[in-house]
Formats: sequence, C-alpha cells, structure tokens
Amino acid sequence: MARPNLSRAKVLDAAAELAASGGVSATTVDDIAAAAGVAKGSVYYSFASKEQLFETLIEESVTRLAERLGESVAEALPGEGRPAARALARAFLHAVEERPLRTKVVFAELLRTDRPWSETLGGHRTTVLSRISDALRRDGSPASPLHASAFFGALVMVAFERLAFEPGLTVEAAVDAVVG
Amino acid sequence: MARPNLSRAKVLDAAAELAASGGVSATTVDDIAAAAGVAKGSVYYSFASKEQLFETLIEESVTRLAERLGESVAEALPGEGRPAARALARAFLHAVEERPLRTKVVFAELLRTDRPWSETLGGHRTTVLSRISDALRRDGSPASPLHASAFFGALVMVAFERLAFEPGLTVEAAVDAVVG
Repeated sequence: MARPNLSRAKVLDAAAELAASGGVSATTVDDIAAAAGVAKGSVYYSFASKEQLFETLIEESVTRLAERLGESVAEALPGEGRPAARALARAFLHAVEERPLRTKVVFAELLRTDRPWSETLGGHRTTVLSRISDALRRDGSPASPLHASAFFGALVMVAFERLAFEPGLTVEAAVDAVVG
Repeated sequence: MARPNLSRAKVLDAAAELAASGGVSATTVDDIAAAAGVAKGSVYYSFASKEQLFETLIEESVTRLAERLGESVAEALPGEGRPAARALARAFLHAVEERPLRTKVVFAELLRTDRPWSETLGGHRTTVLSRISDALRRDGSPASPLHASAFFGALVMVAFERLAFEPGLTVEAAVDAVVG
C-alpha cells in the first residue's frame, strides 16, 4: 500500500492537471486514479468524493496563497511607490508561477457561484481581500473592501494573462501594470 | 409554430437563467426547452448544439458590451479625474446590471481555457481590452495591454462583487474603487 500522504499529494496533482485542461465537471475519479497511478480506493481513502477532493485542492491553494500574501505585507518596508502593494503583487505572481495547474483550477472557479465549494471559496476570498486591504492601508492608499476587490481583480486578470497567454511577461512588468 | 426570433430570444434567456444558477455543464437542451416553454426541436431550429447556443449567448453579450464601452469612451469629454476611464467603468457596470444572468454566465467562463468557446471568448476579450486601452490613452494614463488587463480585472471583480454579494453598492462607489 502506498503511504497515504504521498498518495494524497499524487492524487491532488493528477486532479489539478486533468481539471486544468478539461474542467472539473469533465474530470472523473476514475480519470484521477488512472492519472495518479493509484487504485480508485486510494482516492476514496483520502477524499470522500470528487467534490471534497476539489474543495480540498482549492482550500489548500488559497490558504497557502493567503499566508504568502500576509508574510509579504508584513516584511514590506514603508516608503514611496506603494511598497506593500508591490510586495503583495509580487508574492501573488510568484505563488501562481509555482503552482500553475492548481491556480488554473482555482481561477476557473473564482467567478462562479454555482458550485458545492462556492461558499468555502467565498470565505477564502474574504481572507485574501483582507490581506490586500492591509497592504493598501500600509501604503496610505484607499483600503475599503471595494478597493481591495478592485486590486484583487487587477492582480488575478494579469496573473491569468501571464499563465494562459503570455508566460514570457516578467513578474515586474505584471507588478507595474497592477500597482503602477 | 412560434416565430423563430421570439423563440430564439426565449431560449437564450432560459439558458442564461439555468446556467447562471447551475452552471453550463449541468444545463441540458431538455432543461432549456422546458424552461423556455418550447419544443426541443425549436431549440435545434435556432442552434446546432448546446455548445453553439452558449457560444452565441457569450458572443452576443460581449459584442454588445464592447459596443457600449466604445460609445462611452467616444462620448467622454477630456478633463481631469480620468473621465474616459470613469465613463467606460460606468458603462460596463450599467451593462452588467441590465443583463445580470447573461453576465453571470460570461463571468463564470472568463477565467477558463478548457471550453469549446474559450477561443471565441479570448478574441472578444481582445476587443474589450482595446476599448479599455483607448480610454486609458485618452486620459493620458499608461495604456499598455497589461495595464488594460489590470483595469479590466478590477472592473470585472468589482462588478462580480456587486452582482453576487452586494447588489446595494452604487455604481459610483464601484467606479471610484476601480478608477479612484
């Protein structure tokens, strides 16, 4: 028997890869097990259902992202040129770059409200938005929830553009477009 | 027999309503025909397939939006306070407000790359982005494709926030968050 944690990670990676290219709805537990090279029972050993598997994938991705954003803001030095917003944008873009497939799955779910995990994702959105508000406030910029949403949207769209269409764009060019 | 154009509009409205609440994948041609109160044959009279129906819905929505954005920018007077960007943001938010269900469907597809219509939608994204670049340029703001993407993302996220969670937010508050 494979060690459950190793098998769990392989299953999540395989699910991300399949859903990034074919969508969550078209991805079955059979496909995931086959792509991960594990028995279907191993998938159900770690996850109660396909829905719970994707909920976990999204949850882990966004929790990790929110931690990174929080650290980047905490480490930013005060100064001119919106340093906290720039540090946060840079951390976001690097996090996307490290896990492109998982990010694709999360992005594809981000503007939907019809999924079993929409509520969970909405809760995490709130956490990410409050990290953004922190950054805007540290820089002395307007930091209302709506300003944080606007900043988040700019960041997501630029990150999506890089991920899907223009992988050659540098992180700094992307940061400039969002913060500049 | 219902007049094809009337029936076509009813079918698109019913499809938008079903897909806005349950997603495109879970919506069948049978559901759409039943919700529109037409025979399944009437759906196939206007559309070759479910995919073509949704492609048409997305195409019509985005074409209409791009026209509105273009008009708003053309009518904006030069001046302080980024008038062209504000006019464009206002036009976008009003267009979303007039067709909330169709917009929900388009938004849900916007950050995906795994659909039969992803390429069509990508082409329209380019048109919308060039209307945004026009507005940014008229205001003397940086107007690169990446700046347009960032502005588009801010606008989409704020519009989504209003549509899905805070319908009480005024258009002007939303415009301020994006442009301010």
